[in-house]
Amino acid sequence: MTIQELAKTLLVEAIEPVGANAEITHVAPIQEAHAGALSFIGNAHYERFFETTKASAVLVSQKFTGESGSGHPVLLRVADPYAAFAHALELFNPRKDVGKGIDPRAVVSPTAKIGNDVTIMAGAFIGDGVTIGDKTVIHPCAVIYDGCQIGNDCVIGPGTVIGFDGFGYVPLEDGTYYKIPQIGTVIIEDHVEIGANCTIDRATVSQTIIRRGVKLDNLIHIAHNVEIGENTVIAAQTGISGSAKIGKHNMIAGQVGMIGHIETADNVVIIAQSGVSKSLTKAGTYFGSPAKEHRTALKIEGAIRSLPELIERVKALEEALQKANLDQ
Amino acid sequence: MTIQELAKTLLVEAIEPVGANAEITHVAPIQEAHAGALSFIGNAHYERFFETTKASAVLVSQKFTGESGSGHPVLLRVADPYAAFAHALELFNPRKDVGKGIDPRAVVSPTAKIGNDVTIMAGAFIGDGVTIGDKTVIHPCAVIYDGCQIGNDCVIGPGTVIGFDGFGYVPLEDGTYYKIPQIGTVIIEDHVEIGANCTIDRATVSQTIIRRGVKLDNLIHIAHNVEIGENTVIAAQTGISGSAKIGKHNMIAGQVGMIGHIETADNVVIIAQSGVSKSLTKAGTYFGSPAKEHRTALKIEGAIRSLPELIERVKALEEALQKANLDQ
Amino acid sequence: MTIQELAKTLLVEAIEPVGANAEITHVAPIQEAHAGALSFIGNAHYERFFETTKASAVLVSQKFTGESGSGHPVLLRVADPYAAFAHALELFNPRKDVGKGIDPRAVVSPTAKIGNDVTIMAGAFIGDGVTIGDKTVIHPCAVIYDGCQIGNDCVIGPGTVIGFDGFGYVPLEDGTYYKIPQIGTVIIEDHVEIGANCTIDRATVSQTIIRRGVKLDNLIHIAHNVEIGENTVIAAQTGISGSAKIGKHNMIAGQVGMIGHIETADNVVIIAQSGVSKSLTKAGTYFGSPAKEHRTALKIEGAIRSLPELIERVKALEEALQKANLDQ
Repeated sequence: MTIQELAKTLLVEAIEPVGANAEITHVAPIQEAHAGALSFIGNAHYERFFETTKASAVLVSQKFTGESGSGHPVLLRVADPYAAFAHALELFNPRKDVGKGIDPRAVVSPTAKIGNDVTIMAGAFIGDGVTIGDKTVIHPCAVIYDGCQIGNDCVIGPGTVIGFDGFGYVPLEDGTYYKIPQIGTVIIEDHVEIGANCTIDRATVSQTIIRRGVKLDNLIHIAHNVEIGENTVIAAQTGISGSAKIGKHNMIAGQVGMIGHIETADNVVIIAQSGVSKSLTKAGTYFGSPAKEHRTALKIEGAIRSLPELIERVKALEEALQKANLDQ
Repeated sequence: MTIQELAKTLLVEAIEPVGANAEITHVAPIQEAHAGALSFIGNAHYERFFETTKASAVLVSQKFTGESGSGHPVLLRVADPYAAFAHALELFNPRKDVGKGIDPRAVVSPTAKIGNDVTIMAGAFIGDGVTIGDKTVIHPCAVIYDGCQIGNDCVIGPGTVIGFDGFGYVPLEDGTYYKIPQIGTVIIEDHVEIGANCTIDRATVSQTIIRRGVKLDNLIHIAHNVEIGENTVIAAQTGISGSAKIGKHNMIAGQVGMIGHIETADNVVIIAQSGVSKSLTKAGTYFGSPAKEHRTALKIEGAIRSLPELIERVKALEEALQKANLDQ
Repeated sequence: MTIQELAKTLLVEAIEPVGANAEITHVAPIQEAHAGALSFIGNAHYERFFETTKASAVLVSQKFTGESGSGHPVLLRVADPYAAFAHALELFNPRKDVGKGIDPRAVVSPTAKIGNDVTIMAGAFIGDGVTIGDKTVIHPCAVIYDGCQIGNDCVIGPGTVIGFDGFGYVPLEDGTYYKIPQIGTVIIEDHVEIGANCTIDRATVSQTIIRRGVKLDNLIHIAHNVEIGENTVIAAQTGISGSAKIGKHNMIAGQVGMIGHIETADNVVIIAQSGVSKSLTKAGTYFGSPAKEHRTALKIEGAIRSLPELIERVKALEEALQKANLDQ
């Protein structure tokens, strides 16, 4: 693909030097790029590689101050270099995993309803009455239990389990536990992508719901009756307890825990390893275990760091006061 | 099933109005119930749905103050509405997963000893000399290694690994690690239920033991040589390090970590995300990382929240004292 | 094997009583050992079992003060009893899992390059162009995606996923996310052992790298573009975010989290449940969330425990000062 062709597709705003053209054969990170490569500078951290890169062209923002010229790559100015690079990556590496059909080594119930252009890889398990939408990809060893519904354009990662029984027991007087049947299902809407080795439990009754556009990383636990709002993104190893309701467009970092039966507002950001023990009713950023507003948490963290010194100051005050009393 | 028949089975103490009867066809949560449904009010939070529910009958406690009558559902008073509802759920949705035999797409060693009425689903892996008790269900992609013993009435969730090598190495002088052979096994007693994608490692020598009645949620790690006492319940993403010994009837919440070679007493409760670094020798509730008695932890958490204010107070004291000294 | 033969192999420095000999048939922990067993005392905690053990011989250090004699086991003095015991375990229990070939129920791409003496168990999935080195063992339900490279003498645990897409999205203006193609791979060097149900994501471009000698426990998440240095050991449920670079010979305990794009020096030790939010540029031990030098963290933890008392002391100071002011 020539730079001119590429520039049109990627909505490049300016090519420097004007009229420059060359063959682009692949994309690569700027510090590793060779001739033929398209690369990008996403933030100031990577500007230092500009002088030495061998890339043929580099996507940069309008603010980038480097200049094209002899020995330097062609500059392609765009609104968002990172997004344009992602787009270029896809142009040169089109998805190969969609629409490959059902591998004969997958276990698919004859009562499952499978959409068009679906891929179900070897070792996947699809239970009775499961619905799988168009262009969805189910990876090896993913397990989808009876009655669960998966939307269109979804990805269910390897080893991920959808619709296993929720964790619900009634304690009996003899100290044992009585299992509460889990007869609900899981609904996963369109454009949802779920990573590897996650667990999304079925509801006790009714549904566990993952709304459209949600992206889940690996090793995430979503308990029974949870609802995750549209376009919420959750990083690895986070766990959401039963009946919690996450708002739209939340960003939840890794290893976060959330107790059951609480809610988050839309546009909530939760920092890694936080433990959310109360509903977060306002958009904003939260941190800590238990989670607090980020500014409060930072203030407290700073105060904690100065605590050994504070103890010394209190001791000094006590001594000064005692001395003052003795002096009187 | 009529209300009268149901009332007998669920040990209902009073039907209001007396003599009421109707056909119950299914169970449903109170806020979603339609005609024919049996529902329940487990705590005050759900009482608000009583006025509008379309359920035909509702399980309530003796304390519930709502009244049956025109347009309202029949009230079934029981000692524990939640337990009665769980029981009703099972009546209307009998388990279908027990006793289905060995799926030909499971991998089962010819030397494994399989009990009666067992279910081993497609994609499960059962190693040499494994023992599996009666009525136990092994889910897809569960892996049970050589020599492990699983009791009666157990559930081993999908993707769960029983008896993989424990994590034990001897550091050598050249900086590499020498693997310690893990030649022990895992013993899982009767009525144990283990969720999805858990890992229960085999002992170095001797056994890792999960005692009868234990319930484990998803993504839990149990290291080599651990022993979990009877009827202990552990929530998702918790990890127990090597040779720890958990008492009977503990309740361990999600994302808890416990270091190796320590013990907990019987009837210990550990709150989510706690990190247990010492033996907990007394029954009680613990929280924090490192874990402390819950009351102590709450007091400290309160003190931490007031820390920025405390720093201001110390500053004020210092200024007051300095002023006093200047005045003298 | 006789004690004399064993002593030669295990580099025993002294046999007490001199010339003692007996048949050793197996190895066992000291508190459970019977006649014929070789056991060991690795630290003071286990010395209490010396008086009652029925082991025929016990590996001890030069410092151990117990004496051999009538009814007591033969003492074998060695530099490191634990390492010698591990060695003996292997002598009596040679590995059986290497070189068993490819199980026909594994799914192996015809374009994968498989080394000599490899074991690929049933239910494993090996993608196109994957390279697997000599004597490597791939466990059931492990999934290795296209183009990943696994070295010699490696172990890939059951349910572990190597080379699934990294978690990378560009946020679009309409609130949805645009997936960044993940076209890199994973390189796992020689002598690497990875536990059960781990996830090692492929790089966006370039490689995620696990250097030689690394040992990973279960349920660990390694994000895209991470590099783990030689002989680093990581315990269960830890997660390393994207593009982090871990030094050589780190010891990272369980449930640790590390944010992306940071580095650790060589010989760093990180205590369980820590959250590493900045690069750790010096060898040493770190703890806390956010992680601090261990000594600092201990000092702060001590100060936090005394915080409720400190508040009382500040209150007393305030009252004393107010009283002093009133007195004037």
